[in-house]
Order: sequence, then C-alpha cells, then structure tokens
Amino acid sequence: MKIDFLTLFPEMFQGVLNESILKKAQEKAAVEFRVMNFRDYSTNKHHNVDDYPYGGGAGMVLQPQPIFDAVEDIRNKTDSKPKVILVCPQGERYTQEKAEQLAKEEHLLFICGHYEGYDERIRENLVTDEISIGDFVLTGGELASMVIADSVVRLLPGVLGNEDSPVLDSYSSGLLEHPHYTRPADFRGLKVPDVLLSGNHKKIAEWREEESLRRTFNRRPDLLDSYPLTEKQQSFIKTLKNGN
Amino acid sequence: MKIDFLTLFPEMFQGVLNESILKKAQEKAAVEFRVMNFRDYSTNKHHNVDDYPYGGGAGMVLQPQPIFDAVEDIRNKTDSKPKVILVCPQGERYTQEKAEQLAKEEHLLFICGHYEGYDERIRENLVTDEISIGDFVLTGGELASMVIADSVVRLLPGVLGNEDSPVLDSYSSGLLEHPHYTRPADFRGLKVPDVLLSGNHKKIAEWREEESLRRTFNRRPDLLDSYPLTEKQQSFIKTLKNGN
Repeated sequence: MKIDFLTLFPEMFQGVLNESILKKAQEKAAVEFRVMNFRDYSTNKHHNVDDYPYGGGAGMVLQPQPIFDAVEDIRNKTDSKPKVILVCPQGERYTQEKAEQLAKEEHLLFICGHYEGYDERIRENLVTDEISIGDFVLTGGELASMVIADSVVRLLPGVLGNEDSPVLDSYSSGLLEHPHYTRPADFRGLKVPDVLLSGNHKKIAEWREEESLRRTFNRRPDLLDSYPLTEKQQSFIKTLKNGN
Repeated sequence: MKIDFLTLFPEMFQGVLNESILKKAQEKAAVEFRVMNFRDYSTNKHHNVDDYPYGGGAGMVLQPQPIFDAVEDIRNKTDSKPKVILVCPQGERYTQEKAEQLAKEEHLLFICGHYEGYDERIRENLVTDEISIGDFVLTGGELASMVIADSVVRLLPGVLGNEDSPVLDSYSSGLLEHPHYTRPADFRGLKVPDVLLSGNHKKIAEWREEESLRRTFNRRPDLLDSYPLTEKQQSFIKTLKNGN
C-alpha cells in the first residue's frame, strides 16, 4: 500500500512514521509513506496557500490551486487510483469497519489542512472520502490522518507478527475486553483474582466472558444491541440488569 | 498547564510537539510537555515492562510496577494533582465537552500502552480518567494521547492568536460548517456562488446559515436534536425534509 500525506507541516510525521509498527511495516515493504508539502505546488510568487474567505468572516481558507495541482501530480505519477481523503468534522464517523475497507485499497492520499477551512471546490471535485475521527476540534488534519493510517496499516497482511498479537483486539469483536492481569500476583497488597491462578481453563474462560459482558454492560451498553448474545449470555445480562 | 506522556516510544512525540500550535503554546509558556519512557522505571534487571497474562491467552500485559513507580515519581515532584489518563477502547468517548473540562486542569498525565493490555490494577488504582477517541483499534495510545493534548492545548488562554482564528470551530457550536470559498472566483470553470461575491451581507449570512443547516441535516441529523432551532430554522429544516 502507498500512503501519501499532503501537509504544511511535514516534520510532524517523522517521529510517528519511523517508530514501532509503522516503521516495521515499511521495513517489511507492506507500506510506503510519502509526506509532501503542498506549499511546494503553489504557483503564487509568495508560495501562499490560503486567502481570505469570500463573503467575509474570520479565519483563512485553503485555496484550490496548490491542492489540486499536488493531487494531480501524484495521480499522474501512479497507475493506482488513490482514495483522496479529507479529515474534517463534517466527514463520516471513522470506525473499525472503515479501517478494514481502507486496508483493501492500494493507495491512500490524505489532505491535511491546518486550522484554515478548505475551499469547497476541493471537497466537491477532488476528495473521495471525508472522514471525521470524532466530535472534537483539532488544530489540523495531521494527527487525525496519522490515526487513520495507523489503524489501517496494522491490518495489512504480515504487519503484526505473533509477538504483537493484539490483546486489545477482542474489542473489535463487538464486546469490550475482560480485565488482564500479569505478574506479580500480589502487588502492594493488590491481588490477582484467584480464578486466574487456578489453572482451571473452563472457569477462567467463563470468568473472562462474564467480565467482558459486565464491562460492556456498564460502559457501552449500545454495543450489546448489535451483538449476537447466546441464551446463557442473555441470562447473565439479565442478572446484571437486576443489580446482581 | 503541564502535560506528561509515559510511553515506550518517546521519539513518536518529537515531531508533533515541536511544530505549529503545540510549539507556539510552549513558547508562550501556556503548556510544558514532558515525554518519559516508563521502561526507565522498571526494577527488573532486563528492564522488562510486560509479562504473560495470568490465565493464559495471546499478547502481553503491561506490569503494574514500572507504571505505578513512574506515576508516583511524577506526583511526588509536583504540587499539582495530575489527572492520570489512560487512553483505551473501554474509556468514555472523547468529545469537545471533555476537551473543555480537561483544559481547566493544571496537569495531565497520559499513560500510553503499546499493543499490550494493561494490568487491571493500573486501571483501578492509578488512573483517574479512561478515554476512548473512537471505535477503532490503534497500535498504541501515543497518537490518541497526542490528539487529546492537541485539542486541549488549543483551548488554553492565549494559545490561538487572531491569525489562527479557528474557522473550523463553528462545528463546536453544534452545527456543521457552511462551505467556504476563496480566490480565485473561477477555478478551471468551478465557480464561487454568486451570493458570496454580491457584497450583500444580509444575504450572505442567510446563505451561510441555510447551508450550515443543510449540511447538518444531510450528514449529522443527530446534531439537530440537541440544537436550539429558531422558528425560521425549523421551517427551513421542514423544506429540506420535504426534499426541496
């Protein structure tokens, strides 16, 4: 997979792309990252990329020319048809399902604005996907694009080795994770539940299932609506509802 | 405000914390960042920080000792009472409202795990806030912590100058933004709506209001439920519902 980032702050990406899983993914040739400054495409003599909004108002707006030219330059140099992604509060809400869809693409291209707005013609004529990572305001699209890239790249074949086998993942099964414990069994008087030390695998599996259901019930009951509960699980949820 | 990050990958933070608004915020002394490797606190002779889960299963689990000692060391060296934040899928959903609450704190301390799970005793005895930025899986807590820090720091007094006056922000007013346009008025035949070039401020304000309502209606109708619509706005929404 190729992933390109168009940004005014290329330095923001260096630390993140060159550490941990994203670094390994590049070494394994599962992904190739490129970070480009779209200011380099500005034909304006001062290399401006933004201007005042038509109709007045506060803030600056990113002009179409540099971003159109940058995207087209990238498109012309590749046979793949990149998804052109704009990260913005107006976009569709990002989810694990969307991450799985994007992981099937050959080429992703992120446009990262920075506190400015985007000229609407970029949105309407260049962008294929508008994505929001949540209902909060960031200073720019860079971090949100890195979040999306990280969640996509870890899904690419061969990227996560066995050693990284993601314990955090049962969450993507539809329920929240049960609690985890590791050594020591007694840390300053805080003890690991007996059942986990019992060696009784059936009991351990039951405990984990119940704790996973309990946590989901307490923190994200909405997830239970779409989860295919067994009869036994349903009756456990009923006891939770009755406050037991 | 002080913001500390506990991580196994300190290099991930350098690019992000030293660019743009987060850099300016440090220069203005609005925030002081520290990035610490909690491996440095491991008393284990190999400086391990994780171990196999009790009860079996895939993946590794972060041990309590290094993280407890790191948090306590930070706490002992400051008069402030830091919020200790764990970013994880089980946490409360992050929103702009939470960003505003965190912006009132003196000191935030993020614990960033990395594909491992956390020993439950960390969660129960050390952490004050568990936050999730969304329903997707990341390789670690670093990017999510930077997202939260970015959204909080931009709210601190004096950080955003007038030049950065955030056009993206009307979103946090409860409606999505109207479209923005800037020069040129005609870009490769793609034209700016006439009304924005008219100089008629009343008409421009009306157009923007309607486009903001239209976009919210089309993309995020849930936001309209909690928005205090005027009578005029309600009747505009009615025409949208009737497909006009």
